Order: sequence, then structure tokens, then C-alpha cells
Amino acid sequence: MRRWNGWGDETTVVELPAHGGAFLAARIGPGQVLADASLPSVIAQVPASRLVPHALIVTDAEHRVRHARGQSLADWLAMREGNFGAFPDGVAYPETAAQIRQLLAWAAEQDVLVIPYGGGTSVAGHINPQASSKPVLTLSLERMSRLLELDEQSLIASFGPGANGPQVESQLRARGYTLGHFPQSWELSTLGGWVASRSSGQQSLRYGRIEQLFAGGSLETFAGPLQIPTFPASSAGPDLREVVLGSEGRFGIISEVKVRVSKLAEQEKFYAVFLPSWPQALQAIRTLGQARVPLSMLRLSNAIETETQLALAGHPEQIALLEKYLALRGARIGKCMLTFGVTGNRAQNALSLKQAKKLLKSFGGVFTGTLLGKKWAEGRFRFPYLREGLWQAGYAVDTLETATDWSNVDNLLNKIEASLRGGLAAEGEQVHVFTHLSHVYGEGSSLYTTYVFRPAGSYAGTLERWKKLKQLASETIVNNRGTISHQHGVGRDHAPYLPVEKGELGMAALRALARHFDPEVRLNPGVLIHE
Amino acid sequence: MRRWNGWGDETTVVELPAHGGAFLAARIGPGQVLADASLPSVIAQVPASRLVPHALIVTDAEHRVRHARGQSLADWLAMREGNFGAFPDGVAYPETAAQIRQLLAWAAEQDVLVIPYGGGTSVAGHINPQASSKPVLTLSLERMSRLLELDEQSLIASFGPGANGPQVESQLRARGYTLGHFPQSWELSTLGGWVASRSSGQQSLRYGRIEQLFAGGSLETFAGPLQIPTFPASSAGPDLREVVLGSEGRFGIISEVKVRVSKLAEQEKFYAVFLPSWPQALQAIRTLGQARVPLSMLRLSNAIETETQLALAGHPEQIALLEKYLALRGARIGKCMLTFGVTGNRAQNALSLKQAKKLLKSFGGVFTGTLLGKKWAEGRFRFPYLREGLWQAGYAVDTLETATDWSNVDNLLNKIEASLRGGLAAEGEQVHVFTHLSHVYGEGSSLYTTYVFRPAGSYAGTLERWKKLKQLASETIVNNRGTISHQHGVGRDHAPYLPVEKGELGMAALRALARHFDPEVRLNPGVLIHE
Repeated sequence: MRRWNGWGDETTVVELPAHGGAFLAARIGPGQVLADASLPSVIAQVPASRLVPHALIVTDAEHRVRHARGQSLADWLAMREGNFGAFPDGVAYPETAAQIRQLLAWAAEQDVLVIPYGGGTSVAGHINPQASSKPVLTLSLERMSRLLELDEQSLIASFGPGANGPQVESQLRARGYTLGHFPQSWELSTLGGWVASRSSGQQSLRYGRIEQLFAGGSLETFAGPLQIPTFPASSAGPDLREVVLGSEGRFGIISEVKVRVSKLAEQEKFYAVFLPSWPQALQAIRTLGQARVPLSMLRLSNAIETETQLALAGHPEQIALLEKYLALRGARIGKCMLTFGVTGNRAQNALSLKQAKKLLKSFGGVFTGTLLGKKWAEGRFRFPYLREGLWQAGYAVDTLETATDWSNVDNLLNKIEASLRGGLAAEGEQVHVFTHLSHVYGEGSSLYTTYVFRPAGSYAGTLERWKKLKQLASETIVNNRGTISHQHGVGRDHAPYLPVEKGELGMAALRALARHFDPEVRLNPGVLIHE
Repeated sequence: MRRWNGWGDETTVVELPAHGGAFLAARIGPGQVLADASLPSVIAQVPASRLVPHALIVTDAEHRVRHARGQSLADWLAMREGNFGAFPDGVAYPETAAQIRQLLAWAAEQDVLVIPYGGGTSVAGHINPQASSKPVLTLSLERMSRLLELDEQSLIASFGPGANGPQVESQLRARGYTLGHFPQSWELSTLGGWVASRSSGQQSLRYGRIEQLFAGGSLETFAGPLQIPTFPASSAGPDLREVVLGSEGRFGIISEVKVRVSKLAEQEKFYAVFLPSWPQALQAIRTLGQARVPLSMLRLSNAIETETQLALAGHPEQIALLEKYLALRGARIGKCMLTFGVTGNRAQNALSLKQAKKLLKSFGGVFTGTLLGKKWAEGRFRFPYLREGLWQAGYAVDTLETATDWSNVDNLLNKIEASLRGGLAAEGEQVHVFTHLSHVYGEGSSLYTTYVFRPAGSYAGTLERWKKLKQLASETIVNNRGTISHQHGVGRDHAPYLPVEKGELGMAALRALARHFDPEVRLNPGVLIHE
């Protein structure tokens, strides 16, 4: 069963190893454990639904609790405290596009606000109902998860928008194909959600971002349906796919997604290399990214992340051996771990590996083979579960991410880390901060920063700490040529920062589009565009 | 000096070889030559300008003649007959974004329509002034052609929008870089024009389309400036670059273009392979395109194009030897020529070549080495000059293009060719039609069809023939899952067909955007969106 107040399935438990707890305690002090609310106590708070009955809508309290919050740290604190604020008045489970259209017509008639819901994994406040004089309907797409059609010549698959990562991959793999889209949220997040929030997966270097994978489909809007046909490319005016991508439920509800799929590759391997220092590592990954070596993933941890990962890995003896081996070869304190993958046919993979190794070696890289790469691949979706382990040890963890051009990566990374590290200094609290680059482009890179801090004595105080840190980092990002999000989207949390990058006229253009598709502002108001 | 009534520089002459003339005569009959108008006779027709004097605007007749028409066949006929219809009232030559803004403010004040003008190479009626009660100002960007900034870490170059292909490449190559964008119009077309019309270059397989190369920049609109910052990628809402791409001068005037550039490759080679039949060739190119072999270009001529190219090549003895060689190896009547390129480091190129050859051989491909590939590369920008040679031999030539998914390529190609081939049957005229696939994607391919027909006894009759053929082919395209344009844009000629692919709601969204940026409909009215 899925956790009602945290990440993933209840049977998956990722604990903080004892060694990891000591590592954090030495850096930011002993943990501070806060008491959790129980599900029955939250259910008891749910007010009566304001919706008139509808055959496709469920209004029982537990459904409404389970669709009230996403997975941001603010959501986490609300769920753990049992202080939800607002609940949807009901959850609809349409099974067809026609039922979505029917629900939209009903919502217009009943003066109801509508929130489209995929996997509920937003970390930016995309799906949280707000207190409102109008009833709020959450429209879950979980019953629309089937592979509807597969064009094996064109490599186009049509899916219901509610298919989550495992549903997408299992249906494709049964036929010998893959989408190749693996965000960290893959176990729960959905195709429609990926499109609506412009998601990026860990192997985007090979498969592309969702922008490249999304070939067309349908959007149901209050102004009627928008059908986007598939073309391999077109110069016929502005691309309407790009209006749907990142629309975050503001323009309409995605009812079908056509994606570009790939045949399963002959071979896939992941390798780890340690670079002696951050400056060398940064230059190495940029050079490798720009050399067009056909790799399928590239991820570089900075020195603190490398140290933290090795400390939290939980095998102190093996890690000590590894560190000894690396030190002998020149990668000592300050070393940075780089993971890369090759996916393709054997001959191409062999050449890619050879070229990557040679290039990395020229920057002092120490190659360690496939063991750590394999570990990365096995644990690639486990990190979100660690929030529970950390929380139970008395630590709060959050992540944030951006992207910027190469000439600004080091500057922006340093400023983000500094803003977080010193963010709670007034309270005398330390924050443990580390970063990796996980999506590498010719032009620049994404930056993914993790920060760990201690909860205050109360939930309210902890939320205040998070708000302070989130605001500091967000301001640092947009004031230093970063985008407010590279892969998580805007939602409600990032909406105040969006105008810095879109500009006044750009925001007005988005608002004009929203009004065009949703003149009454019924769909997810406050998300993406600050109203 | 640039031709005033045709393509390119006057000193470049590409004649139809005698053998080629005989080839066409045998297929569609002897040529029909029409008399050309002279430049002085056209200049004499230009009416007085309706513009009040402005320091940045030239109103002399020859400038106005030279900016009145693009390069569609309809434009060609108008220019050759000296029947221009309408001329702009003046041509402005701004040198800065501030001057563009000043000109827009002036146009609003004076109630003047504005047509942005790059290289004037549109083949879809993007830049033709229409008869109008309001004066029309053509705004040429030719004085804004400089490389303004080069970020060598991020591989981002900032250019004035008026830089044409040679200006872009020469300024970049001097520093060791290339944009890698080579449309057939490269000698004259401009960066701003490529962005505004979503252009694609011959090596898009390596470098991407202009959508992938355009990183950001500035658009001057009647509602104010839109500045788009550069990010390697972003999930922060709909991408405003995609609103500028394909906007065809309807939303604003592009005043700066930032593009993603590449280091010059170590090695580049082009090869030709002959496949024994179209079905084998089509399967081969699809398989190769989907195998992700890192090639830089792929182009497949169908059997009639292959035959026509060999006939028009002008070296009958050499061609006869080639045909003998091919026949011995199984590529006889019905054979199709496939050209491919490798661009990159030597080791990668060697592997790509090996993999491509192996794959093509499995479809019966006969490899002929680099000679024909080299010829292709040398002559890659010469095809547009051949219209002059054909015209003087008494033949009219035009091309059209689309793209569709692989499962529909053969169907669409056959239908387009059939619609053109039989298009003048009622008049007892033959049309010589052939096609190549030149931009190959995992999902599908572009189709580029050339058709040659005889002018009627008059210009008016010839224009009617063209209109009939263009309409038949355009209807065939949009009614059979093709996009109305893969690389030439919409302009005025394709605007009536656009609603089929964008849908009613999509067209209304584009109209809403146009109204947002240009409430008075002053910019290029009638282009892109039928008013």
C-alpha cells in the first residue's frame, strides 16, 4: 500500500545507516525527532464534501486525504503533523477522454475548480487544493494507464495519461521497446504529469527530455479539445506541443499521450570514475558532454556529495578499501565521483567507453569499473525513500534544482550552496549541503542540490526553516541566471520566481493562453501563473 | 550583384546540360520559353511611396522592387513577367534593436504595416506586401549581421538577426566553431529568418533543427520587448522560444539570436550507396535512422529522382560507367541513391561508416565511396540556381515538402507524386515528378518533392498551372497526415491549410498570441494565420 504521509510503498524501507547518522551529527548536530499524526486523526478532520453526487466522483475522507498533498518538504511536514489545510471535495476517476469532457462540463455547470492529478509526486505544490469558496475536484487519471496503440514502424506509442513509470515500461518492454524516461520519481509519477511539468529522466542524454519524447496527443479544455497530430518535425508555425508541455494543468487535462519509443538496446552499462578535484571534474564533464560521445547518462557529484554518499553507503570497510585505492591513484580529499552510462550496441558502447575513459583520464580521472555504476543503477529510485529514514533519525531533507550555461555553473553552484549553508545561521543551525550535475548539455548543465537540516522543536518552526531556505535558494537561482526549475516544474512554490525569467510580456502571453483555454480560471488556479 | 528576378548571384550560372534537356523533352515535351521583363520596365511601374520621410527608410524604386517578392514559383513568374502586384512603400535598414523599436513606434504612430525581411528567400509568400489602404514598410535586417558575443565555455554565439549563412559561418569558423545549419537557401537566408520560419539544415541529423540551435534572444513587439534568456533546458512552464520559432513575423521582429554552436569537427565525409529498389531503400533508411548510428546527414532519392539526377549530371560517359558498375552488383532500373555523411572524430566516423555500410549492405546496398558524396557536398547550394537554367530551356520547376511518420511515408509520397503527375492531365500536359527523403528522424522523415512542367503560352496560364498543382499537392499533404511544411514555413501560401493540423482551438490560440503581441494587426497580416 502506498504511504499516505510520505514516499512510495510502505513495504520499502531505506534506513539511515548508523555510520551515516554519526556523519550528520558531527556536521549539523544530533537529530530532532517530531511526533507523527495518525491517519485516523487526519481523516477525522476532513470536512463534508461540497460536491453534489456524481457517478465518477468519490467523496470519502481517505480518498480526499490521499489526494490533498504532493511530496515537497512543506507537504511532508503538513502530512506528518496532520495539518493539511485544505482537502479536495472529491476525487474523480474518469476512464475515457469522453468522461473527462463530461466532468469538465459538469464542473463548469456546478462552478467547481478542477485539479488534474497524475502520480501526486509534485515537489512544487502542483496538486494541492487551496482554501476556496468554490468546491474543488481532484481529477485523478490513474484509471487511464493503458498502452492504446503501438506503431512499430514509426516507434510511436499511445498511452493513457495516467500510466506511471512501471506501467509505461512494462507494457513497452513486453513488446521489445522502452520509453527510456527515468526521473527519480519514476515508480509513481505518470506520463501525463511528465508532459504537464516538462520532466527529465536520468538517461535524457540518450533518450531526450519529455519534450523530445512527447510526439502529440489530446488535451481536454474548457474551450474544447485540442488534438495534436504526430509529425517527426514541422515548420508549420509555433509548435502546440510546446504549449501543452509545462502547462501544469492550467490549460487543460491531457487525455492521451503519444510518445516516441526506442527498441531495447543490446547492452547497457554504468561506470564510476573519481576526479581528483572539483575544478578538474567540472572541466572533464563539460568537455565530455560537448565532445558528443554517445553516452546515455552522466552524473557528477561535487566533493561534499561524494563524501556524503560514501559515508551514507553503509559499508564502512569496503568504502575504506575504495578510498585507499583511489588515494594511491591521486584521488584523495576533495575527490568527485562521476558516473556515466553507455546504452546501445556493443561496438558503439565499447568505443564510447574507450573515448570517455581516455578523456576523463586526461583530467586525472581514476576509473573504478562497473561496481559503483551498478550500485547506482540498482538504487536509482531509492533516494526519495531515504527522507523517511532521515526523518526518523531526526533530520529533514529537501532538494532543489536548476540549470544554467557552463560559464555560470560553478558560480551558481557556489552561490546556491552558500545561501543554504548559511541560511539558518541566525538560529545557530548548520545546514549540510551538497550538489551534483545530472543532466549535461552542450550549453550547460542541471544542478541538483540536496540540503539536510534539523527540524525545530515544532512543525511550525520547521516549516519556517524550510521556507527561509527555499526562498534564499530560489532568489539566488533566478538572480544568477539559473532557471527556477530544470525538471520539477513551477507549481505554486516556484510561481513567484517565474516572472524573472519569462519577463513581463512573456508572463502576459502565458496568461493570455490560460484565458484562451480556461476563461473562468477553473483549472488549477495559482499554479504556474500567480493570479 | 544579386539577381533582381531570380535566385542568387548573377555571376553564378547553372545551365541545363544538353543531355538533361533531351531527358525532359522525352518526358514532358519540348520547352516553352516566355519572354522576361526588364528591370527598368518594372522600376517604371513603382508608384510613389505613401510614407513620410524617415532617416532609416529608403523609398527609391529599385529598393522597393528588390524587396517585393520572395522565391516561390509564383514570385518567380511575377518577377519574370514584371507583374509585381504590390511593392512596399519603403525599406528600413535598422542597425540596432533600439532602431527597430523606434521604427515600430513610428509605424504605430503613422498607421503603417510592417514586414520583417531577412534574406528574402521565402518560398511560401512570407514577405510579399499586399495591396492595402495602409502604407507598407519592409524592415530589412541586413545591417544587423554581426557576431556580437561568443561564450566559448557554453558554446553560445549571439548574432544580429540579419546574418546570412556565409556571414554566420565565416564569423564562427574564424574562431574554430560552426553552427552547422545548412538549408539549401544558406547563401542568402538569415538566422532571424531561420528562427521565424523553423528552418532545418541538411545536416540536422548531427546539429539539430533551428529549434534545437536557437537558445534565446530578443523579440521587439508592439506590446514591448520579449527577452528570452539562455538555459540548457528548463521545466519552468511553456517554452517561450517555441512561441518565437515559427512566428513568421506575426508576433514581433527578432532583434538578436543566440545560438548553440559546435567546435569544428576533426573530419567530415559524405558517401553514396545505391539500393536496388525503393522498398529496400525505404526500409534501409528507416532502419539506419532508428539505429542511432551517429551520422550527420542522410538523403535518399527515389528511383525517378535518381534517374533524373544522373541524367542531369551532364557527364554521360562517366554515368554510363557508373551504371554498368552498379548493374553488375544488382542495382539496375529502379535503383535509389542514398547519400550519407559522417562528421566527428576519426574513430567515431570510422565506426559509424562501418555500421552504416554493414546495415545498408544487408538491404542490397552497393557502396560507391566518396566521389558522389563529394559532388553532393560541393553542389549542395547549387540546386536553386538550376531554376534559371531550366527556365531558359523552357521549363518551370518547383519543389514542395512535408514530413510524416514512417508508417505513412510511402503512402504519402505516392499520393503527392500522383496528385502532381496527373495534375495537368486535363490540359494534356505531363508533369515530371520526383522525391527524396532528406531529414530522417526516429519517428519519420521529411519528403521533398520536385516537379517540372511546361509553362503555358502566357504567364497567367503558367500561374494557373502552378496554382492547380500547388493546391492539389497541399490538399493531398494535409489530408494524408503530412504537415503542410517541414522546413519552409507557412507564409501566405500554406496558411489556408494550417487549420487542418492545428485544429480550430489551436488556431484560436495562435490568434490569441498574435493579438497579445500585436493588437492592431500591423505585423505581416495574412501570413501564418489567415485573417
